[in-house]
Amino acid sequence: MAVGLDGSLDLAPVAGVRVGGAELGGRKKPRTDLAIIELAEGTQTAATFTRNRFCAAPVTVARRHLAAAAPRYLMVNAGNANAATGEGGIADAVACCGMLAAAAGCGEEAVLPFSTGVIGERLVLERFERAIPVALQSLATDGWTAGAHAIMTTDTVPKGRSATFTAGGKRCTVTGIAKGVGMIKPDMATMLAFVATDAAVAPELLRECLEKVVGRTFNRVTVDGDTSTNDSCVLAATGRAGNPVIDAAEHADYDAFEGAVDEVCRWLAHALVRDGEGATKFVTVEVGGGRTERECRDVAYAVAESPLVKTALSASDANWGRIVMAIGRSAPVDLDQGTVSVWLGDVLVVDRGGRADSYREELGASVLAGEEVRIRVDLGRGDASCTVWTCDLSHEYVSINADYRT
Amino acid sequence: MAVGLDGSLDLAPVAGVRVGGAELGGRKKPRTDLAIIELAEGTQTAATFTRNRFCAAPVTVARRHLAAAAPRYLMVNAGNANAATGEGGIADAVACCGMLAAAAGCGEEAVLPFSTGVIGERLVLERFERAIPVALQSLATDGWTAGAHAIMTTDTVPKGRSATFTAGGKRCTVTGIAKGVGMIKPDMATMLAFVATDAAVAPELLRECLEKVVGRTFNRVTVDGDTSTNDSCVLAATGRAGNPVIDAAEHADYDAFEGAVDEVCRWLAHALVRDGEGATKFVTVEVGGGRTERECRDVAYAVAESPLVKTALSASDANWGRIVMAIGRSAPVDLDQGTVSVWLGDVLVVDRGGRADSYREELGASVLAGEEVRIRVDLGRGDASCTVWTCDLSHEYVSINADYRT
Repeated sequence: MAVGLDGSLDLAPVAGVRVGGAELGGRKKPRTDLAIIELAEGTQTAATFTRNRFCAAPVTVARRHLAAAAPRYLMVNAGNANAATGEGGIADAVACCGMLAAAAGCGEEAVLPFSTGVIGERLVLERFERAIPVALQSLATDGWTAGAHAIMTTDTVPKGRSATFTAGGKRCTVTGIAKGVGMIKPDMATMLAFVATDAAVAPELLRECLEKVVGRTFNRVTVDGDTSTNDSCVLAATGRAGNPVIDAAEHADYDAFEGAVDEVCRWLAHALVRDGEGATKFVTVEVGGGRTERECRDVAYAVAESPLVKTALSASDANWGRIVMAIGRSAPVDLDQGTVSVWLGDVLVVDRGGRADSYREELGASVLAGEEVRIRVDLGRGDASCTVWTCDLSHEYVSINADYRT
Repeated sequence: MAVGLDGSLDLAPVAGVRVGGAELGGRKKPRTDLAIIELAEGTQTAATFTRNRFCAAPVTVARRHLAAAAPRYLMVNAGNANAATGEGGIADAVACCGMLAAAAGCGEEAVLPFSTGVIGERLVLERFERAIPVALQSLATDGWTAGAHAIMTTDTVPKGRSATFTAGGKRCTVTGIAKGVGMIKPDMATMLAFVATDAAVAPELLRECLEKVVGRTFNRVTVDGDTSTNDSCVLAATGRAGNPVIDAAEHADYDAFEGAVDEVCRWLAHALVRDGEGATKFVTVEVGGGRTERECRDVAYAVAESPLVKTALSASDANWGRIVMAIGRSAPVDLDQGTVSVWLGDVLVVDRGGRADSYREELGASVLAGEEVRIRVDLGRGDASCTVWTCDLSHEYVSINADYRT
């Protein structure tokens, strides 16, 4: 079950981008599990990758290729992460890029590889040899929805979003797709997210925009606190909309552009959590009143990642004592519990360190009964704040992760 | 189920210590849930408490009392943590101490209060008024096992251990009891542990010994990464064994004393994990080859607390990819994955960053089939090491914590 998502997508084409897919084969249930995104000549591309030190081979190769050439193809396989595969895994990723480059007639370094799935197994290269030409044949401007399906692993619904804005009188589009439901605490970017726009944007500004938006969207969601080996997020700008190049944060069109990228990335980031493994609730944790953003973030993640808070949420149990426990274990040592207040939805639960006089169990229970829960914490010692999004920890999470490889 | 524990205890009396209990009442199933530990005049006492900033009222009061007077009574109630109860909760804890002091004929500050259970509810003082005299009546030198039962909450077995050593030709005893199975990642001490010896030990040395031993026992176990609001650990030395006072780390008897305290605390700390909520496996995570103990500890906790690693352990699935993911997300940024090796038991799984050539799925599966699992990581970049102990994350954990208050 994906909280508040029905799996239907309405994605707008982006001029200069085509998406295609094919079946690698070897699965119990046949499905499209190779996606290729083609970027027109002249496209500017920015990308962020996982900070996990056991980053996957494709992450290493994509970083290298991105530094060497302008990407023309993004190639994504689902089912095998090609992580912890040593030098052999790196050679495999490079070989796959070479196959696509040969078939498409571009340089090997113009291909960025992405993988997601089981860690520790080698890719089967013959499958790529067979599937890549099929995927290239299927490239189409309206292939985004098929692409969103192709990159899924344990996702229960495909994830994609479009937004539009106007730049220099031209209507521009931003469309993005993403996948990921477990091993989700992106640190730089989420498992896999691909966002493209037809707007013309200067390369340095594109990178700045991606970093800024990712920092407040993908990097603020957590399912299980476990940062993946394969997180990658790509933002490509084809420049086909015909707008004058947006080349500085002060440019008249920049805010509209960043707003559209933010809208798409925020929707996708929330979708990862809504479809989090075993999720039955979508939870927003807002921490304010801190002296620094950092202390608010520490507290927000401690609440959002506490197995005790998450199991209580799963049971719709307003066990707010666990929330104060999580605040207490993560807050700065000089926190005075007498200044802390906590709300469930709009219900004041903890008033300056103790249970609010007005609080009744039924009030908390009625908030927890909903599918969307907001936990608000006021540390009462400053003006900084931070918001993160998470889901509950249910029996289904244990089932999914106990049975993942079987 | 408690991994490798059958619930039977064989606890030796400690000269100068008596333990008693009584029923506070108000429970669905009647049981002894108030314990009192009496310490003879002249006993030296050291204690460590949680670092959680939402520390419970009894922790605040116990700290204050310990600084003001030599403890004569430790009073423990199970079922209500008296945490997040504001100034009222502090007054309640002081009032309970006053009741016991009046009945026993000592100063209020000679009583240290301890509580464990639900957070956010006020104590019912009338229950203490009725139960305290009953508990005092029951004080006995062989009351330790009854005391271990009285302090349990969701524990499935009572936890206690004795050890002996010789000092100055006198046979000395160390006996301890503890409780705690969830909200367990002690930071300073565990939920509740009470250890006493009849040896004569100088007060400053007693504190040093407790800090040292707790640092490598209670502070190295984790069930769910959630540090309790009520963690407390007390070490009392009555001096009734008749040994010459152990007054310095260089004293001929110090190592034997520390060894006995270590044996008791280590057994108790492991018992918390063996009886961890929903635990079906006892897991040792050893990380070596680091440049600093700190980096080894970060990696060990990341592995021990990863929900993905813990659910795989629960399913006896040798999903070692999740172990390298956890290493990668917690290791220093300059870690070279090519120097990292991982063993399950004695089976080499990851050899310098990739799957070992000799590794076969059946080998890993046979290690995971056991109830006791050792995960060993070699970072390959130094001589530092750290070991932590944990359990798996099972359906039962979710059930226990989703239903805790209902």
